[in-house]
Amino acid sequence: MNGAQSLIRTLVDCGVDTCFMNPGTSEMHFVAALDSVPEMRGVLVLFEGVATGAADGYGRMADRPASVLLHLGPGLGNGLANLHNARKGKVPVINVVGDHATYHKRYNAQLESDIETVARNVSSWVRWSLRSEDLGADAAEAVMAAMGPPAQVATLIIPADTSWLEGGRVAPPAAGRKPSPVAGEVIDAVAKILTSSEPAALLAGGSAVRARGLTSASRIANKTGCKLLCETFPTRLERGAGVPPIERLAYLAEFAAMQMDGLKHLILVDAKAPVSFFAYPGKASYLVPEGCAVHVLAADTDDAPAALEALADRVGANGGETIQSLSRPARPTGPLTAETACQAIGALLPEGAIVSDEGNTTSALYGPMMTAGAPPHDWLCLTGGAIGQGLPVATGAAVACRDRRVLCLESDGSAMYTIQSLWTQVREGLDVVTVLFNNSSYAVLNMELSRVGVHASGPKAKEMLDLHQPDLDFTLIARGMGVPATRATTAEEFCDQLERALAEPGPSLIEAIVPSLL
Amino acid sequence: MNGAQSLIRTLVDCGVDTCFMNPGTSEMHFVAALDSVPEMRGVLVLFEGVATGAADGYGRMADRPASVLLHLGPGLGNGLANLHNARKGKVPVINVVGDHATYHKRYNAQLESDIETVARNVSSWVRWSLRSEDLGADAAEAVMAAMGPPAQVATLIIPADTSWLEGGRVAPPAAGRKPSPVAGEVIDAVAKILTSSEPAALLAGGSAVRARGLTSASRIANKTGCKLLCETFPTRLERGAGVPPIERLAYLAEFAAMQMDGLKHLILVDAKAPVSFFAYPGKASYLVPEGCAVHVLAADTDDAPAALEALADRVGANGGETIQSLSRPARPTGPLTAETACQAIGALLPEGAIVSDEGNTTSALYGPMMTAGAPPHDWLCLTGGAIGQGLPVATGAAVACRDRRVLCLESDGSAMYTIQSLWTQVREGLDVVTVLFNNSSYAVLNMELSRVGVHASGPKAKEMLDLHQPDLDFTLIARGMGVPATRATTAEEFCDQLERALAEPGPSLIEAIVPSLL
Repeated sequence: MNGAQSLIRTLVDCGVDTCFMNPGTSEMHFVAALDSVPEMRGVLVLFEGVATGAADGYGRMADRPASVLLHLGPGLGNGLANLHNARKGKVPVINVVGDHATYHKRYNAQLESDIETVARNVSSWVRWSLRSEDLGADAAEAVMAAMGPPAQVATLIIPADTSWLEGGRVAPPAAGRKPSPVAGEVIDAVAKILTSSEPAALLAGGSAVRARGLTSASRIANKTGCKLLCETFPTRLERGAGVPPIERLAYLAEFAAMQMDGLKHLILVDAKAPVSFFAYPGKASYLVPEGCAVHVLAADTDDAPAALEALADRVGANGGETIQSLSRPARPTGPLTAETACQAIGALLPEGAIVSDEGNTTSALYGPMMTAGAPPHDWLCLTGGAIGQGLPVATGAAVACRDRRVLCLESDGSAMYTIQSLWTQVREGLDVVTVLFNNSSYAVLNMELSRVGVHASGPKAKEMLDLHQPDLDFTLIARGMGVPATRATTAEEFCDQLERALAEPGPSLIEAIVPSLL
Repeated sequence: MNGAQSLIRTLVDCGVDTCFMNPGTSEMHFVAALDSVPEMRGVLVLFEGVATGAADGYGRMADRPASVLLHLGPGLGNGLANLHNARKGKVPVINVVGDHATYHKRYNAQLESDIETVARNVSSWVRWSLRSEDLGADAAEAVMAAMGPPAQVATLIIPADTSWLEGGRVAPPAAGRKPSPVAGEVIDAVAKILTSSEPAALLAGGSAVRARGLTSASRIANKTGCKLLCETFPTRLERGAGVPPIERLAYLAEFAAMQMDGLKHLILVDAKAPVSFFAYPGKASYLVPEGCAVHVLAADTDDAPAALEALADRVGANGGETIQSLSRPARPTGPLTAETACQAIGALLPEGAIVSDEGNTTSALYGPMMTAGAPPHDWLCLTGGAIGQGLPVATGAAVACRDRRVLCLESDGSAMYTIQSLWTQVREGLDVVTVLFNNSSYAVLNMELSRVGVHASGPKAKEMLDLHQPDLDFTLIARGMGVPATRATTAEEFCDQLERALAEPGPSLIEAIVPSLL
């Protein structure tokens, strides 16, 4: 058994049975070893940013890591942005980077570079696996590191000779760490705050915004009158009919300030104290209102859902959560806009759907509102702010959940970062419907330009935010990668196309031509 | 004057008047400042890998840097692979990375990451510019650092408040360093070797493979009988009718060994001693034959063309260089293959063309041979081995050389890394003809799989190298980005389409359907 075979066998034994890959020569023994471990599924992608984003989407839905296979420093660079998003979203990923053979590195060949310095940007766990004999054990440790808590991107750098030499040893799964129970005194202290008369809010994120945590949080809010807030870009929010609703903190600091206005206590539940996404001249970076104390109920290493249950018990809130009722908007008619498109999505979203949302000035504004009462579904957000996440995350989520429909809400600007995802969706026969909001603009930047204090921008500046000249035709681009695609310019067309797309197996794309809001 | 304005004014004063950009919020003041410095040209791209590759192509042709503008750590990650190629090719690039405002960094906002650790992978010169007052001077120093010699990627990291605060000061251009003259004793020593009876070769690269260096090298070879070799993937090779020809060292070690067989002396002229691109089990990494001594005539900090002139003088070779005569192949007929397509290119390549070559199992094999006697042109190679370079380099070369035709020879696999380049070619009205060799395969990896010792690969391994299922249709993808595109399946069709494309202004793409060689 060579090193590569021991690696793949160990990964499978540890529950990692999917690898999104874009291999090169230094990874050829990993590729060859796929045939010796039938349980490992290799998913080919055309660009590394798709591999890493797909692993992110997979990890969010499977609650265990997929692996990615990348080609030396440049391949890791190509995958870095979506690993950043996974890092910020605390998603488990096994990041396998092939390297030159150990004895070849000193020759400074063309693809030689300092891989580790790049890896450190996204991974606090980085391991060079320098001997075939150790590769299995290193892999088992990588899986444990990736699982956390908190979950993270664990990077294993594998010289080619570690893969190809004999002597590989399969390692047993390492014992995983469990989330820490939250101490009774902490529960007591938070209970005391919530049962005082001072205005308070729970700010939940991470593991606390699945149905179990939301149920307890809602009971607590109903019993104590505290406000219930969700972090702005949750990794995976369970929502819809039958699930207790939660209000997401707004992206724009002005709106977030209104949501937190008057609070005296902000209780963090696997979430961080809110800060502005970017700095703006003369505006605050730290968004917690003055005079509002911040308390931690559960950190990211803690068992947040259990802490919420204990807190609910402690405040005597044993039942009585608010349940979102089933309530869809009507099918829209008339002009197609971000709003009417999202209305149509609310009208048609199937039960159990997974929504990957990267429509930053379109679906992110209207989507949550319009789908609040749709059948239960998961909502996956742009956790790290690095655009180009939506299509790959949708792809990986569909690989993880073969029996569920995935809806990808994507923007023109962001889509062009990782558009190659569409090809893998066809290759794998994934049930992903992409709604491509085309407003021919980096619309979010038009907004940001004035928010950073540029009020009279000139023609050269405006040109840098404009995606006309030439117009992108996403139906052609999609078809070029084998994805059936249609274009909608009215709400009626959009409804019909979405209904049809959701009824068909396999991927499809609807280009929604919408005016830019900004 | 704010920091951003001082930055752009300083760059322009230092001769850097082009910026390939994909900005975000933290770069909005840079974008706004474009209108205050009319000489700076902003070129919008849809993905950072296009920006960095375009800067590479621009730098190769202009012999001075373009700047790129990237968005924090993830934007730098997206641009890293082509910065790696620029680094390996010793191409000057000013790599400007926006960051959060200084006071915002401590809040660990979503896009916060360790930018510098990523930058160190590609830049030995990295500077955080923390005060508006210093930004101009930092920019002038960055330009000097980028110009070298050797030329390099210089990274300037700019917090948003450094850009937006007033107090910017324009800095004068820093005095550039000159290449070092090579000492007379070194010339004498090399002359002595070359005039001995022992078999020797000059191995030239970098600045030595432009017409001036090639002329002296050819004279030396003709006078002394030494062999003339060029590094495998030169940054910019001047060649064609009227230019002294030079033999490129082969990619495959077996062929390179034959080229160097029997040598007793290898003289390096701005080139490194040849090593294998990758390690292969049981094969040598270092390719210089046993018993062959390696000598350095000129390092990358030296004036290599002047050293060759001095050496030519010293061996008494004052004239008598070999000049490549004009000699084109006939227009091919019959089946379209990599070979007949390259024959057509040889028959039709216009004078002064710039060829960006990334057809690793197609044009890289047949292109140089078929175009050897074409009118004079430049040939740009994959310097760092990170694929996805061809289309961006072609784009940047066309921006640098408005009066020349650019021909991009690209493969299906590599093209999909940075296909977004096509959009910028339309937007900028660039005269780039892309020949897209579509063989539905990562063909080079099929070759590498057996070269690394995997002789009986299984179906799962083979699937990872196959680009059928679905077939990519590059004519649709190109049209989706506004580029006129045709498909050729016979040599006659290809000739007609190439002739027409070269006669038309603006970009176009020809999808050449060819069988996979391997």
